[in-house]
Amino acid sequence: MESVYNRIRDQRLLDRIVSAEEAASWIHDGMTLGLSGFTRAGDVKAVPFALAKRAEHEPLKVNVYTGASLGSDVDKLFAEKNMLNKRLPFQADATMRKGINAGDFHFVDQHLSHTSEWIRSNVLKPIDYAILEAVAITEDGMIIPTTSIGNSMVFSQHAKNIIVEINTAQTELLEGIHDLYEPEKQGERSPIPLTKPDDRIGVPGMKVDVDKIKGIVFTNQLDSPSTIVEPDDETVIMAQHLISFLREEIKAGRLTDKLAPLQSGIGSVANAVFHGLLDSEFTDLEVYSEVLQDAVFDLLDADKVRFASCCSITLSSDKMDKVFSNFEKYRDRLMLRPQEISNHPELIRRMGLISINTALELDIYGNVNSTHVMGTKMMNGIGGSGDFARNARLGIFVTKSIAKNGNISSIVPFVSHVDHNEHDVDVIVTEQGYADLRGLAPRERVEKIIQNCVHPMYREQLSAYYEEAKKRGGQTPHILEKALSWHINFEKNGTMLQRVEQPV
Amino acid sequence: MESVYNRIRDQRLLDRIVSAEEAASWIHDGMTLGLSGFTRAGDVKAVPFALAKRAEHEPLKVNVYTGASLGSDVDKLFAEKNMLNKRLPFQADATMRKGINAGDFHFVDQHLSHTSEWIRSNVLKPIDYAILEAVAITEDGMIIPTTSIGNSMVFSQHAKNIIVEINTAQTELLEGIHDLYEPEKQGERSPIPLTKPDDRIGVPGMKVDVDKIKGIVFTNQLDSPSTIVEPDDETVIMAQHLISFLREEIKAGRLTDKLAPLQSGIGSVANAVFHGLLDSEFTDLEVYSEVLQDAVFDLLDADKVRFASCCSITLSSDKMDKVFSNFEKYRDRLMLRPQEISNHPELIRRMGLISINTALELDIYGNVNSTHVMGTKMMNGIGGSGDFARNARLGIFVTKSIAKNGNISSIVPFVSHVDHNEHDVDVIVTEQGYADLRGLAPRERVEKIIQNCVHPMYREQLSAYYEEAKKRGGQTPHILEKALSWHINFEKNGTMLQRVEQPV
Repeated sequence: MESVYNRIRDQRLLDRIVSAEEAASWIHDGMTLGLSGFTRAGDVKAVPFALAKRAEHEPLKVNVYTGASLGSDVDKLFAEKNMLNKRLPFQADATMRKGINAGDFHFVDQHLSHTSEWIRSNVLKPIDYAILEAVAITEDGMIIPTTSIGNSMVFSQHAKNIIVEINTAQTELLEGIHDLYEPEKQGERSPIPLTKPDDRIGVPGMKVDVDKIKGIVFTNQLDSPSTIVEPDDETVIMAQHLISFLREEIKAGRLTDKLAPLQSGIGSVANAVFHGLLDSEFTDLEVYSEVLQDAVFDLLDADKVRFASCCSITLSSDKMDKVFSNFEKYRDRLMLRPQEISNHPELIRRMGLISINTALELDIYGNVNSTHVMGTKMMNGIGGSGDFARNARLGIFVTKSIAKNGNISSIVPFVSHVDHNEHDVDVIVTEQGYADLRGLAPRERVEKIIQNCVHPMYREQLSAYYEEAKKRGGQTPHILEKALSWHINFEKNGTMLQRVEQPV
Repeated sequence: MESVYNRIRDQRLLDRIVSAEEAASWIHDGMTLGLSGFTRAGDVKAVPFALAKRAEHEPLKVNVYTGASLGSDVDKLFAEKNMLNKRLPFQADATMRKGINAGDFHFVDQHLSHTSEWIRSNVLKPIDYAILEAVAITEDGMIIPTTSIGNSMVFSQHAKNIIVEINTAQTELLEGIHDLYEPEKQGERSPIPLTKPDDRIGVPGMKVDVDKIKGIVFTNQLDSPSTIVEPDDETVIMAQHLISFLREEIKAGRLTDKLAPLQSGIGSVANAVFHGLLDSEFTDLEVYSEVLQDAVFDLLDADKVRFASCCSITLSSDKMDKVFSNFEKYRDRLMLRPQEISNHPELIRRMGLISINTALELDIYGNVNSTHVMGTKMMNGIGGSGDFARNARLGIFVTKSIAKNGNISSIVPFVSHVDHNEHDVDVIVTEQGYADLRGLAPRERVEKIIQNCVHPMYREQLSAYYEEAKKRGGQTPHILEKALSWHINFEKNGTMLQRVEQPV
């Protein structure tokens, strides 16, 4: 019981401890839930499972709002049991993806900084239950989140009821690293008083009306570890290209060797880039990002990174052990914020971030598709990439130039879906090189992209398309009959290479 | 001379008055110019013409940066004389458009709030001469703009040299209505301290190093009047639909009858909407927009609008007479700001604007094309629509459901160019009705759009496409072979209607 008193320090709440099953029994068919969790970190791990059990023998469909993707296979489970009406704003689970693309339920893919505005202004269905993971509840009923904040702040303030999952597997040392801030309603809002990544602007937990806390469930289970892919030859080369570009920016006097606050999307390329910084001359770096992955902790260990702000910490299994058993070492150099603040246009533009995100495909004019395979099938969602790329000092997109053993060129005549248009894409990096598109008109961009970024096996084919298109004129010349022909070729023949069929 | 002393109150500058020809003689082939001017207002009217004269008998090509489109046929002239290397960030002239689409020079189409960041951080070529229209220069060398600010503030601070055109046809009463504010460099920047449309945060003119002022030219010529198209039956109906939507928002408790600060793009639909507000119950309105057109002054006259902030005043000939001969009446209820401030994401999101812009075409999932006809030919440019739609409380897009006597459907299976993707488009309005897309997954949006917004002559054809696409699955089902077939049909047969050819 010692631990219970440490974890629930508000006397009024001690009698609200319940089992996951009891808490789940309060949730009815048709309700809307707001779950903590962002990229497998800080998600609730008991009540969703108890709920899924109920769904096995009664009709039970809910709307699920989260920060981003959930760990612990919750998204998988909810999709398998067909328990969803609507899911937003992001996911990254293979089973859920299948359900989305089959049209089994509605998935609203949203800029991650936007969901909170819709909740605050009642555009979305109100949340019946917020279910939030916590390390503790303080003397005055303040809920302290764990390894992510995501949308938990706005859920806690606007949900009708709250269920807290206190996870004793999460170190109590997490208390104190959160900075909870909720902007006022639009129209009554003050400037967000943050000008540097390490500014503290809020409070260490979520102050809520304690009457809304209907139950507290204890759990003891670590976050799902991330499945980081180690840097390979190509991602290492991409990191080098990106670092070369940053060096040129320093030479041109546009950056110093402290660079600017760094944001990086999740994934192996991003991780490789950050690994690359380890051996670079850059120093005193700051990170202002959504997710901290393994490499940021290596950079903290090497004193390359001075401070890192995020809304979630997502680590591999090994790294999780190391970081959380030595957490004292990192506490003063880390801060967790709501995703609305980590991704806020106001702050990204003000600080002038360097933003690095992954493209699924891009076209000759610099439009980027981050989400829809062959224009139709959802991968994960746009996530924060739009929040960052649009407002950053540098919107950088990285991708390998080919996929599927060369049967797909990541650079196509015409993207099959647009998440980031030419106005928001500053620099493209592939293993072939980088293209700095800033200040260039579309026709200037084509040449740079083909020369610097396209894989040699597709270079001629892409040039041929462009040369033919140019005869038709326009700001962005295209041959509409052939614009999507590479995708169509892939769907029919399993390759975008024209030699297999389709002489142009 | 009385008027000269009124207009140039800084003694040090009295000997810098020169002819337009002399000022133009300082400009060399290959230079970069920053011209004042935004949507035909406050553009310089003498030096560009003198420069164009020179171009008749010597090789002379320049880069031209502006606020937005120029009046006085300057864009036309520069295109005709083939005087351009690069033009940014916006234009709206038929001759220039032709030159752009022929590839005669490079046009960089940019979010209007972004150009200043590129100038400030030396991403763009440095400006050799800023040529700025003014009503006066104050005792301490502060340049007072005229009917627009556009990018003049950033030009004045970062150009190597400045030429001022003092336009005595512009009323001296303009002095005092400008609020000049330049954000610090990114990374050293404070919050922009504006929370309401009428907040004054800067100074009434542009403080510059007077040594940079190389010459002052006097002119006496009004701005080109706007060619406003009067509301027609359809735009009146569209305005009514939009007002119905706003009423529903009030009913739902998401707005009050003061609404929220209004932004509206330029053009006849926007003007009609604002006319519609004249007869509505809404009151005490605020405008926070780029351009003020005629209708806003009618709303000011009727005391419907309390305050209007903008970066440019663009009026028809009649209205110009009326407004500027009674300017005392409006001075306290107007403010002009740099386009970086009128269009700043930080401020648009903070105040929660209602943003109304025109779509060229849109697709069944809510992606909007504002710029490229048939995916290739530039109309004008994205302008501020992206700054606003992405960050506003409500991103509303308006368009008539058909064009070219019904041979074009403005709503197509797949847009041929994306300026605003599904994440940034909240509400669509045509003369058929409105579709509120907020919180809807793509498959839910299709039904609303087809039912509420598509013209009856295309409804069946669009449903047929979607029904066939659905069989292939996906988050946004498409048939890639047919996605652009409507455009291709139009190019071949002059119509998007399938009965002419192409049985599906």
